[in-house]
Amino acid sequence: MSQPAADRFPTPALEKLPADIRERILAVQEKSGFVPNVFLTLACRPEEFRAFFAYHDALMERDSGLTKAEREMIVVATSAANQCHYCVVAHGAILRIRAKNPLVADQIAINYRKADISPRQRAMLDFAMKVSRAAQDISEQDFTEVSRHGFSDDDIWDIAAIAAFFALSNRMANVTGMRPNDEFYLMGRLPK
Amino acid sequence: MSQPAADRFPTPALEKLPADIRERILAVQEKSGFVPNVFLTLACRPEEFRAFFAYHDALMERDSGLTKAEREMIVVATSAANQCHYCVVAHGAILRIRAKNPLVADQIAINYRKADISPRQRAMLDFAMKVSRAAQDISEQDFTEVSRHGFSDDDIWDIAAIAAFFALSNRMANVTGMRPNDEFYLMGRLPK
Amino acid sequence: MSQPAADRFPTPALEKLPADIRERILAVQEKSGFVPNVFLTLACRPEEFRAFFAYHDALMERDSGLTKAEREMIVVATSAANQCHYCVVAHGAILRIRAKNPLVADQIAINYRKADISPRQRAMLDFAMKVSRAAQDISEQDFTEVSRHGFSDDDIWDIAAIAAFFALSNRMANVTGMRPNDEFYLMGRLPK
Amino acid sequence: MSQPAADRFPTPALEKLPADIRERILAVQEKSGFVPNVFLTLACRPEEFRAFFAYHDALMERDSGLTKAEREMIVVATSAANQCHYCVVAHGAILRIRAKNPLVADQIAINYRKADISPRQRAMLDFAMKVSRAAQDISEQDFTEVSRHGFSDDDIWDIAAIAAFFALSNRMANVTGMRPNDEFYLMGRLPK
Amino acid sequence: MSQPAADRFPTPALEKLPADIRERILAVQEKSGFVPNVFLTLACRPEEFRAFFAYHDALMERDSGLTKAEREMIVVATSAANQCHYCVVAHGAILRIRAKNPLVADQIAINYRKADISPRQRAMLDFAMKVSRAAQDISEQDFTEVSRHGFSDDDIWDIAAIAAFFALSNRMANVTGMRPNDEFYLMGRLPK
Amino acid sequence: MSQPAADRFPTPALEKLPADIRERILAVQEKSGFVPNVFLTLACRPEEFRAFFAYHDALMERDSGLTKAEREMIVVATSAANQCHYCVVAHGAILRIRAKNPLVADQIAINYRKADISPRQRAMLDFAMKVSRAAQDISEQDFTEVSRHGFSDDDIWDIAAIAAFFALSNRMANVTGMRPNDEFYLMGRLPK
Repeated sequence: MSQPAADRFPTPALEKLPADIRERILAVQEKSGFVPNVFLTLACRPEEFRAFFAYHDALMERDSGLTKAEREMIVVATSAANQCHYCVVAHGAILRIRAKNPLVADQIAINYRKADISPRQRAMLDFAMKVSRAAQDISEQDFTEVSRHGFSDDDIWDIAAIAAFFALSNRMANVTGMRPNDEFYLMGRLPK
Repeated sequence: MSQPAADRFPTPALEKLPADIRERILAVQEKSGFVPNVFLTLACRPEEFRAFFAYHDALMERDSGLTKAEREMIVVATSAANQCHYCVVAHGAILRIRAKNPLVADQIAINYRKADISPRQRAMLDFAMKVSRAAQDISEQDFTEVSRHGFSDDDIWDIAAIAAFFALSNRMANVTGMRPNDEFYLMGRLPK
Repeated sequence: MSQPAADRFPTPALEKLPADIRERILAVQEKSGFVPNVFLTLACRPEEFRAFFAYHDALMERDSGLTKAEREMIVVATSAANQCHYCVVAHGAILRIRAKNPLVADQIAINYRKADISPRQRAMLDFAMKVSRAAQDISEQDFTEVSRHGFSDDDIWDIAAIAAFFALSNRMANVTGMRPNDEFYLMGRLPK
Repeated sequence: MSQPAADRFPTPALEKLPADIRERILAVQEKSGFVPNVFLTLACRPEEFRAFFAYHDALMERDSGLTKAEREMIVVATSAANQCHYCVVAHGAILRIRAKNPLVADQIAINYRKADISPRQRAMLDFAMKVSRAAQDISEQDFTEVSRHGFSDDDIWDIAAIAAFFALSNRMANVTGMRPNDEFYLMGRLPK
Repeated sequence: MSQPAADRFPTPALEKLPADIRERILAVQEKSGFVPNVFLTLACRPEEFRAFFAYHDALMERDSGLTKAEREMIVVATSAANQCHYCVVAHGAILRIRAKNPLVADQIAINYRKADISPRQRAMLDFAMKVSRAAQDISEQDFTEVSRHGFSDDDIWDIAAIAAFFALSNRMANVTGMRPNDEFYLMGRLPK
Repeated sequence: MSQPAADRFPTPALEKLPADIRERILAVQEKSGFVPNVFLTLACRPEEFRAFFAYHDALMERDSGLTKAEREMIVVATSAANQCHYCVVAHGAILRIRAKNPLVADQIAINYRKADISPRQRAMLDFAMKVSRAAQDISEQDFTEVSRHGFSDDDIWDIAAIAAFFALSNRMANVTGMRPNDEFYLMGRLPK
């Protein structure tokens, strides 16, 4: 088997965590029925935990010109390019649920250029992928191209910031050998 | 939506196909309950169709030192590196069934280095990925490393030939915009 | 010296081969004056041998909108990108003969963008090289560009399929350490 | 001139900012004599601003097995690989000051393998660069190698987390066209 | 510490050098106040030394449609891409002096696309970088693009030849572990 | 046809060239029976011409621990990696003659790892290729490896300098669209 990195960064016992972190974890557990491993892995560093989830929520929960499904598309596409087990599986599940589409997450993870998405979403992912893979090359032409599809400058910040935040997140998950919970693999695949 | 390539290479009508091809397609349909799109897309060129499936069967159905699940692992890992929708989704389904494991196909597709596989399977995929990505660099050291895990020269040929055959297959699927059938996405994910 | 891989996959004795394969080999020998090594290396796996050459002939011998020399151009360009000794040397020889041009094979192998070929052939090789190097990125724009030069959808299939078939062939030749016969190096270089 | 991206994301007026952000900015200004542009560019999104600096401080200000200068080395090396103007210039200045060394920041930015640093620092940067460029390939061997130089698992988390955080930071700076303040270029270059 | 390569290629004693080389070195010392290390490292091979500096002067000192500052921009941009300590530091200093600009060398070294340069200079560097990174792909379109900014064919030769000459120079500096003299780091950074 | 770059940099008339250059060209013509195009293309810049050939001769004609054939191997291997028509064809011819081997030049150009060369020559080419492709990564380990095969530090300088010089030469040939003379293609292929 193969996540030896996980042994280096053991999950702290729930009862030893600061109260605010323990409460957040218990709340997630109540809502989801299980605790996504990202909460447990990061909890060993309370300050980083708080900053990480504050940042995450600021990007993924705020009102935005992007739907919540579209934001998850950015996560799945860029995390697949970074070969991040945790984020592709966990956010793939969330994308299936938010898009009410059992196929689109796998399609985007494998090759977003061939996914069943709108031209607007394709332009969004082209921009996000360039931020993720080659932000140093982003040019005025890239802004123009994505703007043509109706994205405001504020929306473009969202696209970029989500790609940038998961550049961080994917690296932490890969280094810590973070495993996606088994529950995620099947979520959103069955008709309700 | 986005497979315009598919319009360039339309599927021929079943009744216009040569008898042997039509029969093969009907046999698959009877066994699987649907016709995987690869059969329909390639049927427009009967000679290539016959050679393609003869090659496929020679590699994937023969007796081998590799289990059938292991051979599908090679397909999934190399097809993911080639970002091939059809092969990752369709062979991911077959891998789940053959390995009786609902998680391993997604794990291998995203990052085979982090998948729950044995060290022997990891060495097999390292060799297969080098054949797929940089066969020109294969050296005596690569043979030695994979041999250390108990693979015979005949097994190594199998590993290489499967990676090579799907180098062909992935390119054809990507150029023709081949879509995986919707049925594949869920196959092998539910407990029997 | 340096093809140790060749020792792992020894050439079978001609008299032990199945009759159809032995006859094919003898026919080639009679026509060419020698047996190209690809026939001997692959003969150890009769079923794969038959599928390989059936596929090869379906692509390289059929009627097509591409001349036979143009098809060899695709082989040489993509095999050079894959650094495949056998295919660059052997198909370089065939290209010189079919194009009746002693220079064009070396030109295409080194840098096809600088070769003495027509704009139509340049567009054909641009498409073939993208299939070979990055089929996952093939877009509608690539089809449009190659179509502009008069290639039909059927011709485009040929271009793609030849590039895809030699993606397989180059990998097998590199893994097995297949040597081009010495005879190929000089073929087609001298005026008749 | 060339930061048109900066026009898309204008700096908000100081007096319109939430009190906590305004105070942080004024405090920095008092300490440094100027306001580093990162504070102004990010202030247009207060929640992200707070999370960003909380994360930054948790990594860069905490007690650690890494000196503050070593942490800045990680920032400079990975930001140079990401071609990030703002971070190379601004953190280059901080590195010169913290290391009391006017040369080492330029050396690390250009080619850290040739910089005048200790073998331990070289191992630290090798690990950090792999997190930054190819975290998906991090293996047990990488952990072993960096551990050999005396880094604890907690230190390794710091190395990885700083590389990961600046993967985010560099992308935001590149997309927003963030300019380093002119003051940074000369800081730490002159003997006191 | 880390320039062991330098030990393999020791600097010859000044008095043992051929007279013309010794005189050139003494003249540089008189003018600059120190001997740039490139002169000492290369002096162990007198013929190559003479050819190197003859080539250098032919490109960098001749009359040209490019200003001397622009020529140094090409050196800094391409040497940064080649991660060459010596050339980025030494020619960065010369660029600051020739452009009378203390910031532009660092900007170009880190990411020339974001530097405060004119569109003409940007086009010049785009062409130079393509010569440096992928000369085999230079096409008519690249010539057309750089010509649009007013560069003559003779100017384009200069751009290409400087990028090509420093392709040589960067490689020699990297292999020999050539150190930039400490004096270069601060040159041109302070107002006169 | 496709060397439009050549039109931008026309060959000067022989009688208008400085006497020393004209004489060198006539001497080559007398010896070889034709004037290799590199002499004509570079002659439009007499100072660069003189420096180029002085450098070339200093590396390729001097006494060295490398045979002349070995030096040509370095030229062919690195020029093939740079996809340089002129240098692969012209120096391939010289290599065939100097090595008295009609096959080795094509073998090295296509994939030097599979060429019929000695382990010592393989180590020499590994080092040369690293100088050509990634000199910034050259480490003590690379020196140790090549030294193991009996190369002195002086020999290693030769290997590096030849790879570096042809980094320059290949770029100039690619930018100027330099054509190899037709005569080169067949030279050294026929038994004497």
